[in-house]
Amino acid sequence: MISKPTLFLDKNKCLQNINNMFSKAKANNLELRPHFKTHQSLEISSWYKEIGVKKITVSSLSMAEYFSPQWDDITVAFPANIMEMDSINALADKVTLNLAIENVESVLFLSKNLKSKINVFLKMDVGYHRTGINPDNYELINNILATIDSSDMINFIGFLGHAGHTYQCRSRKDVIQVHNSSLDIMAELKKEYINQIPNLIISLGDTPSCSIADDFSGVDEIRPGNFVFYDLTQNKIGSNSISQIAVAMACPIVAIHKDRSEIVVYGGGVHLSKDRLEDKEGVIFGRIVRKTEKAWGDIIPNMYVKSLSQEHGIISVPNNEIDNYKIGDHLMILPIHSCMASNLMRGYTTLEGQNISRL
Amino acid sequence: MISKPTLFLDKNKCLQNINNMFSKAKANNLELRPHFKTHQSLEISSWYKEIGVKKITVSSLSMAEYFSPQWDDITVAFPANIMEMDSINALADKVTLNLAIENVESVLFLSKNLKSKINVFLKMDVGYHRTGINPDNYELINNILATIDSSDMINFIGFLGHAGHTYQCRSRKDVIQVHNSSLDIMAELKKEYINQIPNLIISLGDTPSCSIADDFSGVDEIRPGNFVFYDLTQNKIGSNSISQIAVAMACPIVAIHKDRSEIVVYGGGVHLSKDRLEDKEGVIFGRIVRKTEKAWGDIIPNMYVKSLSQEHGIISVPNNEIDNYKIGDHLMILPIHSCMASNLMRGYTTLEGQNISRL
Repeated sequence: MISKPTLFLDKNKCLQNINNMFSKAKANNLELRPHFKTHQSLEISSWYKEIGVKKITVSSLSMAEYFSPQWDDITVAFPANIMEMDSINALADKVTLNLAIENVESVLFLSKNLKSKINVFLKMDVGYHRTGINPDNYELINNILATIDSSDMINFIGFLGHAGHTYQCRSRKDVIQVHNSSLDIMAELKKEYINQIPNLIISLGDTPSCSIADDFSGVDEIRPGNFVFYDLTQNKIGSNSISQIAVAMACPIVAIHKDRSEIVVYGGGVHLSKDRLEDKEGVIFGRIVRKTEKAWGDIIPNMYVKSLSQEHGIISVPNNEIDNYKIGDHLMILPIHSCMASNLMRGYTTLEGQNISRL
Repeated sequence: MISKPTLFLDKNKCLQNINNMFSKAKANNLELRPHFKTHQSLEISSWYKEIGVKKITVSSLSMAEYFSPQWDDITVAFPANIMEMDSINALADKVTLNLAIENVESVLFLSKNLKSKINVFLKMDVGYHRTGINPDNYELINNILATIDSSDMINFIGFLGHAGHTYQCRSRKDVIQVHNSSLDIMAELKKEYINQIPNLIISLGDTPSCSIADDFSGVDEIRPGNFVFYDLTQNKIGSNSISQIAVAMACPIVAIHKDRSEIVVYGGGVHLSKDRLEDKEGVIFGRIVRKTEKAWGDIIPNMYVKSLSQEHGIISVPNNEIDNYKIGDHLMILPIHSCMASNLMRGYTTLEGQNISRL
């Protein structure tokens, strides 16, 4: 019985997603350093450990702290936040901590305040233009590397890129094009610096590229994260089929409006997040799947979350479907963005009824 | 020193917002039954109590439970969720519980399962078309009222409307128009049912209408919520001035990109929410205000949150401003939607440094 919005996790799908990515990495001779910002769960992280994953990625020092009791090589793929110097020192004392650097100021500050050694990647802008160094800006790269060189506490280990602009792609072909351009940028950097730093690591990895591309020439490690659950956005990009999506939100039906073919569920922006997807019906906030005895099945055509308030979800329902529902039932909703929905829900319920906690 | 995204609350502004609404209600002979879904804090709720507020509104039974130790008359302005029957019974045993009803099925279920008496409002659709009964549908209204009448446990107390479509308004004039149409709908209902139910309550109340309108003829109580903090959306609608916004998110600066006049802050969709506003620059996710010694001041013209990832905020900065910032500083950001941002942050820090907890 579903009394409140509940985020269900299909563990088998999740394990399959993890296995697929691990196998792909292995086949391409890549280290899989998965991003854990999507699930943020020690329990789920143990499923990676069981198949041989050894290094992880997170996007905040808080997440690094949360995972540090069980993981000893952690990359924080977010511009080093020098205002959290105490956390950085605490982590550097316990684990192999790898930070992302994109300016001289942070290096100078770290150099002065570090109490244990850390590794750093230079964060390169491979075209997303969110963060990172312009890869043509050799003056800045060399300035940062020289500043790092003059510090005993900071060890440069490689270049890190994130092709977040794959999220704007709406076909596998477009993703490949973005990915190939990242490969070119990274290859150029590797050529330029491999003589100076023979163990140079090239780290790339967004879920669309890692799910879709087959060529990872010159890359040493990949850092996808969302693939653990996938979602409707990734499906729209072409990263996954609907059947690979491993989380769904169960939401109680509280009102039915046949006159406008809508259902109101308990499940709003504080559960699913306000992340949106432009789809054939316009902007949508989720899609409804058929309930099965123990899990969920296919998408119900033309049935979608039309709008979200804080606690309400408004579901647009095809005329031929609306009589199948009654007050007190629940709907299963696939999220637009699983990272945001799971951040809001702060925990998962497996199909077997196990509660899985998270940060 | 700001090391992580921190939601600051200017208590003086907040108290002034509460006082203004309370005075307005009093002047118009209205009961102020404020909606607490915005702040969800017992501490902040006590500020209402101090000035004489006695009844409250929430949008979930969980919130009702949270507030029930200190408030004994609670309306849950959300379609009654019969799947939470245990919570309903627990609350009905402790407080005067008022639920919102819009179908016969819920009444029948409640009638069969209630262990203590409750009050109900009929939730009317005053034009927002999210939830509620079509006010022309007297057949449904009368069916529900008859079903309620046949129950010893359910007491009908009035009609409740929420003109959420004021949120689509972009002028005070438009808000007044929506509000007046709600007044007309409610007046019609009052006329129709006041002989049967002499103590009939007409309950209305969204923040735009309650902030902007001056005519509340026929209304008995108002239920605005967001006004406690206000935000950029409400400002765009015309509900409040920028100087009345009582919360701002402090976000550390982690990268500066002069070439594209952007700053990257630690502060993303998991802090501010992905709620967006169409403004003169296009879609924005927040605006930056000037820091003052102890609080914040005016908006910095043309400086805004351009995009949000999970943990990153990308700030578009005017050319003549960008040299004023350095790594390790922080920016103060006014949220698009204060309800969603405070839900994500789960607590407030006053300008005096006091931490205020919430649900």
